[in-house]
Amino acid sequence: MAKDPAGHNYCAVLSYDGTAYYGWQRLRDKPTLQAAVEVALEKATGAQVPVRGAGRTDRGAHAEGQVAGFALAEPQPVEALMQDLNRALPTDIRALAVHAMPPDFHVRTSAVEKTYEFRIVNSESGAHVAPPPTRAWHLERPLDLDCMRVAAQHLIGRHDFASFATKPRFKQRSTERELHHADVLCRDGLIVMTFCANSFLNHMVRNMVCALTRVGDGRYEPSRIAAILQAKQRSASPGSAPACGLYMMKVRYEPPL
Amino acid sequence: MAKDPAGHNYCAVLSYDGTAYYGWQRLRDKPTLQAAVEVALEKATGAQVPVRGAGRTDRGAHAEGQVAGFALAEPQPVEALMQDLNRALPTDIRALAVHAMPPDFHVRTSAVEKTYEFRIVNSESGAHVAPPPTRAWHLERPLDLDCMRVAAQHLIGRHDFASFATKPRFKQRSTERELHHADVLCRDGLIVMTFCANSFLNHMVRNMVCALTRVGDGRYEPSRIAAILQAKQRSASPGSAPACGLYMMKVRYEPPL
Repeated sequence: MAKDPAGHNYCAVLSYDGTAYYGWQRLRDKPTLQAAVEVALEKATGAQVPVRGAGRTDRGAHAEGQVAGFALAEPQPVEALMQDLNRALPTDIRALAVHAMPPDFHVRTSAVEKTYEFRIVNSESGAHVAPPPTRAWHLERPLDLDCMRVAAQHLIGRHDFASFATKPRFKQRSTERELHHADVLCRDGLIVMTFCANSFLNHMVRNMVCALTRVGDGRYEPSRIAAILQAKQRSASPGSAPACGLYMMKVRYEPPL
Repeated sequence: MAKDPAGHNYCAVLSYDGTAYYGWQRLRDKPTLQAAVEVALEKATGAQVPVRGAGRTDRGAHAEGQVAGFALAEPQPVEALMQDLNRALPTDIRALAVHAMPPDFHVRTSAVEKTYEFRIVNSESGAHVAPPPTRAWHLERPLDLDCMRVAAQHLIGRHDFASFATKPRFKQRSTERELHHADVLCRDGLIVMTFCANSFLNHMVRNMVCALTRVGDGRYEPSRIAAILQAKQRSASPGSAPACGLYMMKVRYEPPL
């Protein structure tokens, strides 16, 4: 890829249905969100520039608030840029907003907090039924949401989340993260699990969700979540929930977008 | 099909994403909603019984409130029946409710009013952008919603809607209908057109929507809608909006479900 031209910084807030994509990160032969946004941006502006994401969402995962950063040589009015982008983007990706950003803004390193949701269809747990199309994890066994809520509290705070990280690419990097918020609620006929943290390890949300659903269906006591966390070993936790339920909801910056 | 067994009447309120189906009505070789619901009902109850819909939604059209009627030889608790149905149904069809109905209830002839919505993605008309997946008609030309609202008022009331009916199967049948309500609004990032009537002619909503979007994009004056209605000829109206934006939202009965 070409280097960023010296230029004017922008970010686009993106919503996407990731079902048809091999995740955010550009790959040589596969459709990815990053590549689709770069192609659309070139159509919209004529400029072939790299687009960076605040996070690399997994293959099949979705977003309602991914933030994509890019620089343009010429300044552009943001309203027109958003409309041109939406005309050029495939219909499963939408730009919800476009903002002009200061020169020192970086979409990933400037982020101070991220929020992910994980959505579950489980009609036997008091959540009513969501109208299709629903991108979510369909679970048949009834889930006890109160138990899941109690269990989720064990995860809040600054901890070593190594038990919930899938194959960390760089062993030397810290697996400590600060989870600000974790909750389980019913919304629009779905079970929605929400997690906010300063940042997340690889597959961390999907791994926490998998463990919490085992509390929900009675296989684990809520206190088991604290034990898994304390073990600081991936082998202590049960696996990964599928990406089809995962949504990147919000990236917080200071000052906010 | 077998005749309905003398039995206990039920109805299921259904929500579906019709993208993958050739409409409601059973066909020999194609996936249809009616066939999918009959298969699921047999899995859920062991009984092979016909299922009737309050309306025959078009190929590719959706529902958030289709009503499906059926009779069972043995009475069933409705909560368990709904759960069993949702376990047996494909994930793009959900039962939102199941009700036990009196012996004289008929899902189509007992209906006193139906409500359809037509949803449009058009980011240039003041509707914000809806997060994907969105089943809707994507229109690029900006739409003037105020003009569309004015034009829609011409349709309200008891009229001969022959101009908005596609190839009526039985020429002798009346094409008079009473439209109780027609409106255009923005909701959740979409343009939503709502129509309530005692009943609808074949493709009537899609044909009205097509004409109203021509008002929205400036090709027609709002008064053109009154002229089309008065012509009482299909050739006076411009065509059909695609089924991908059409939703059957509600069927009203007296007393209500």
